[in-house]
Amino acid sequence: MTRFHHKEHAEKQSREMFVEAALEAAGSVDNGFNLKDSGALYLGYFSSDMFEKQGHTSALMADALGINPIPATRVEAACASSGAAVNMGIMAIASGLYDVVLVGGVEKMRTLGTGEVTDTLAMAADVSYEAAVGFTFPGLYAAIAAAHFDRYGSTWEQLADVAIKNHENGKLNPKAQYQESILEIANKIGKRKGLEFDDPMDFLTSDLNPMVADPLRLFDCCPISDGAAVAILASEKVAKKYTDTPVYVAGIGQASDTMALHDRPELTSLTASKVASKQAYEMARIKPKDINLACVHDCFTIAEVVASEDLGFFEPGMGGKAASEGRTSLSGDKPINTDGGLKAKGHPVGATGAGMVVEMFKQLRGQAGERQVSDPVYGLAHNVGATGGTVTVQVYRR
Amino acid sequence: MTRFHHKEHAEKQSREMFVEAALEAAGSVDNGFNLKDSGALYLGYFSSDMFEKQGHTSALMADALGINPIPATRVEAACASSGAAVNMGIMAIASGLYDVVLVGGVEKMRTLGTGEVTDTLAMAADVSYEAAVGFTFPGLYAAIAAAHFDRYGSTWEQLADVAIKNHENGKLNPKAQYQESILEIANKIGKRKGLEFDDPMDFLTSDLNPMVADPLRLFDCCPISDGAAVAILASEKVAKKYTDTPVYVAGIGQASDTMALHDRPELTSLTASKVASKQAYEMARIKPKDINLACVHDCFTIAEVVASEDLGFFEPGMGGKAASEGRTSLSGDKPINTDGGLKAKGHPVGATGAGMVVEMFKQLRGQAGERQVSDPVYGLAHNVGATGGTVTVQVYRR
Repeated sequence: MTRFHHKEHAEKQSREMFVEAALEAAGSVDNGFNLKDSGALYLGYFSSDMFEKQGHTSALMADALGINPIPATRVEAACASSGAAVNMGIMAIASGLYDVVLVGGVEKMRTLGTGEVTDTLAMAADVSYEAAVGFTFPGLYAAIAAAHFDRYGSTWEQLADVAIKNHENGKLNPKAQYQESILEIANKIGKRKGLEFDDPMDFLTSDLNPMVADPLRLFDCCPISDGAAVAILASEKVAKKYTDTPVYVAGIGQASDTMALHDRPELTSLTASKVASKQAYEMARIKPKDINLACVHDCFTIAEVVASEDLGFFEPGMGGKAASEGRTSLSGDKPINTDGGLKAKGHPVGATGAGMVVEMFKQLRGQAGERQVSDPVYGLAHNVGATGGTVTVQVYRR
Repeated sequence: MTRFHHKEHAEKQSREMFVEAALEAAGSVDNGFNLKDSGALYLGYFSSDMFEKQGHTSALMADALGINPIPATRVEAACASSGAAVNMGIMAIASGLYDVVLVGGVEKMRTLGTGEVTDTLAMAADVSYEAAVGFTFPGLYAAIAAAHFDRYGSTWEQLADVAIKNHENGKLNPKAQYQESILEIANKIGKRKGLEFDDPMDFLTSDLNPMVADPLRLFDCCPISDGAAVAILASEKVAKKYTDTPVYVAGIGQASDTMALHDRPELTSLTASKVASKQAYEMARIKPKDINLACVHDCFTIAEVVASEDLGFFEPGMGGKAASEGRTSLSGDKPINTDGGLKAKGHPVGATGAGMVVEMFKQLRGQAGERQVSDPVYGLAHNVGATGGTVTVQVYRR
């Protein structure tokens, strides 16, 4: 994958980032890999249309990679675009049509200003019934947070602990957009104002962390990022040609839910996360307790809390408490977002699901460096489109 | 499918058209079908982003159909979006993950004016290297036509014969946008000017058929349309539960090519059409001569001529002559675009590939009414993205 970043790729088109990621993917194959040996390409890209005024980006990437005439298809499912592309690639191999496929994602977002990006992202909600009345995603997830606080007594401080933890992890990930703890960021920002912080909470509760949509503040929201990520999938038989230590796909799942949040019976969980993870667990023949680490879709801090419950790691309402207790940190019993998550690693929308595969590959092969989880066997990747209108899950095994 | 039309759906959103098409698809299943029995949905939509300012349309359609939580994924490959969605659905079933899937496509284009639609469609070309210097699709296909004329001596009159033939077929298709022959249209338009035509060629060579991009005139171009189409795919075993006369998928293919036309070694054929059809023929274990009818992607008349050569129906350079000799008409030896093609049936971009499946279903079951081809066994559907950056092919068997 490229680094996910809000500035670093300013001069690059999506095709340049995608090629960079694909070449790194090929380079990470132990016995070498020629991209032309791929049978197909599945590309996640949320809105090339709005961000680059470019459609047909699957063919664009195949061309840029020099792998014509291999078939290339773009998959779009809002922020779960490349999670869905990964599932497509897995199915393509399972179908027997191909032995090896490229899956990946890219998003070039920083062509637009922050307000325009927020409006473009709101296209992933129901434009007629949500965006039309002023809802953008911070507002929708704020509604989820408020409902979660009300129902379970979870607190904003628990959400802040999620952000603090994900920045600690991002510090250890050279591909992360933010490689600083929140305290470090606090003192960098504070310095300009003549302020010093000893505790990140003092910063997070200050005006320097402004309210975006009550109760969510700026540091509850993931950033806007450019980036690309690519993975190479192969059938079990063929994979052995390329490496002695492949990472296996043990199970996958995908589910849909109502587009509009107001059409759900309740706001404190995402049904699609439950359904998709159940499918993946059953296919993998494991239980949530067997998962040793997870990348979950923390577009907002509350989303990580809700995901950690929906995926069965903690009881409903206990996700925030678990985060505050450190159970989801690198040394906890259920490490979540070891790569920094969307919060610190960044969230180039269409690349996020594919970026999770990169973390799974590194962790399950014991190559995650300073952020390596101890001896993991199973890892889970969870990618959410919008407020859960789409959720994809993959369970990986070393 | 809905009727494809430029006015009829003006008051409808894409979701309403898609539901209409899906309900008709379910209603066409001999022993009945509940949409909720689908395992997944694959939706082709080229640019919901630009046309409806809506992303995440896969979840939108699943919601509108009331089939949550079944997984739904949008597939985009320019004008081959739903051809690619059909291939995805076929792979999904082949993977063993699902027994029945919905595949389909939709495009709501008439939210924009004609110029804006042309600009939006140009996003399927290489925006940086083609659209940026003024190329839109009429210009790109005009370059193909000019090259074909130059290399093979084919003529504009042959292209006109393609248009005349496709309108004759469209007359017999209640779902077609234009259900009038070109002569009928000529006299309707002529009446306002006090003109009468006995021969469609007199109209087509007149100022009433203005030059769009030399040598292509207005009636060489398919129209702009709204519409949706849906097909239900099932594994062979499960299909028998629903009908005694299923239509079989005998082979599929898909290929990519350079985004930009200027990067190709020659302009008179689409390599991706050749590669994709070769895959499909080999999978079906048949030859081009075994195909009894075909729906090919005639976004411009020249595209049908080139396709009829690339798909192996006629020798290179002989496609135009074959059309003029009536070989591709309903009573010819190789009927092409029996449903009117993009030219007369209409071209709601994302729905076109799925609309071809509808024609295949009707023709191979002998239910195509007045436009029924005599006793067909094999039919081929050919869907092109842009100038062949993507091509999908399916071979169907009765």
